[in-house]
Amino acid sequence: MAIRALTFDVFGTLLDWRSGVAGALRAGGVVDDAEGLADAWRAGFFSLTAEVNSGARPWGNVDEIHLDALDRVLADRGLELPGEERRRLVSAWHRLDPWQDAREGLEALRRDRVVAALSNGHTSLLVDLARHADLRFDCLLSAELARLYKPAPDVYLTAVRLLGVEPAEVMMVAAHPLDLKGARGAGLRTAFLDRPLEYGPGSPPREDPDADVSVADLHELVESGVSS
Amino acid sequence: MAIRALTFDVFGTLLDWRSGVAGALRAGGVVDDAEGLADAWRAGFFSLTAEVNSGARPWGNVDEIHLDALDRVLADRGLELPGEERRRLVSAWHRLDPWQDAREGLEALRRDRVVAALSNGHTSLLVDLARHADLRFDCLLSAELARLYKPAPDVYLTAVRLLGVEPAEVMMVAAHPLDLKGARGAGLRTAFLDRPLEYGPGSPPREDPDADVSVADLHELVESGVSS
Repeated sequence: MAIRALTFDVFGTLLDWRSGVAGALRAGGVVDDAEGLADAWRAGFFSLTAEVNSGARPWGNVDEIHLDALDRVLADRGLELPGEERRRLVSAWHRLDPWQDAREGLEALRRDRVVAALSNGHTSLLVDLARHADLRFDCLLSAELARLYKPAPDVYLTAVRLLGVEPAEVMMVAAHPLDLKGARGAGLRTAFLDRPLEYGPGSPPREDPDADVSVADLHELVESGVSS
Repeated sequence: MAIRALTFDVFGTLLDWRSGVAGALRAGGVVDDAEGLADAWRAGFFSLTAEVNSGARPWGNVDEIHLDALDRVLADRGLELPGEERRRLVSAWHRLDPWQDAREGLEALRRDRVVAALSNGHTSLLVDLARHADLRFDCLLSAELARLYKPAPDVYLTAVRLLGVEPAEVMMVAAHPLDLKGARGAGLRTAFLDRPLEYGPGSPPREDPDADVSVADLHELVESGVSS
């Protein structure tokens, strides 16, 4: 079955959230280990999305979850920040820079296949990010549409349904084995895109031996033939 | 309240569906009054979407409704076409050419505001159309997400919710007073974009005195200041 659409994870796979968020934290006065705090914030985000998926927490979009996760991570570290500054930090997730190959890579892949974002970010957040980074997608598909977060199967299946194709006609592209495992569980094909700097230099290497394709950047994905 | 997003009707407002569909009908052997049949097909489509909105008909996407409406209009005229040909004609609605100002106009409007499609077309149909016509939107918002058709208020309100703004921060742009009336009913602002050739030369003139803005093309909309 031919691949008719590529769906892309956004945070970490196309955008360098860690540098952007650490920079915003530093600008907000968190000068001590801003990168470590960004990592803890990201981990807290994942914990809360898992609570949404389990039903322990009502649906809330990424801005709402980011604000709650930030409150917790600041409290853990005994840091105080005014509410206005916390909201400014949450909005920093709307203005993240892309990895160097992202813009041109998506353009090249779009020539022969539908290229969609498939992100936990809500639609309006994805609009802001795509505009900021000048990334062109054929459409933005958000976990918001299923009111669950990746890796819940419904998120991938909602995207597949909206694309009007079969699950096996879609390839999920992500730097995160957990995301790809969720996609495979929903019947999608998967491409592991290595982003060794997502968590900074020296972070543990990742791989996904179960992925259909593993590539070091988007140009390799173009050359792999999935787009032709 | 500033306008933060422009939402665009697609069929007729950005794309010349009539020429494309009449051409496909002619190529399919309907040589006698192909334009008239295209008009009747379009009218039949609107009747069936009204049935969906009233609850008399279950939800079906535009492809499904187009096929049903085509069957009826062919039967009305005593025309026979094989099923394969009917499906080919339905797919002609996925490959329509844009009005001459559409591509550049959207690009210019995107500089300062979010520009989204807000169409009765389902997401995958909008993806095909935007790719075919090379129209760049910040996102595609479909009536499919509300499982109702314009001018039902829920269609506009779903779009507004996904854009993360207030209704009055969104301006609906369309060549169709009924669409704009629906948008105003949901609290949006409206721009009437005249497309005097949508139903061919000599068709009755249209206007919308209740619209906030009335323009003759997208360049006039840029100059009207809604985008700056």
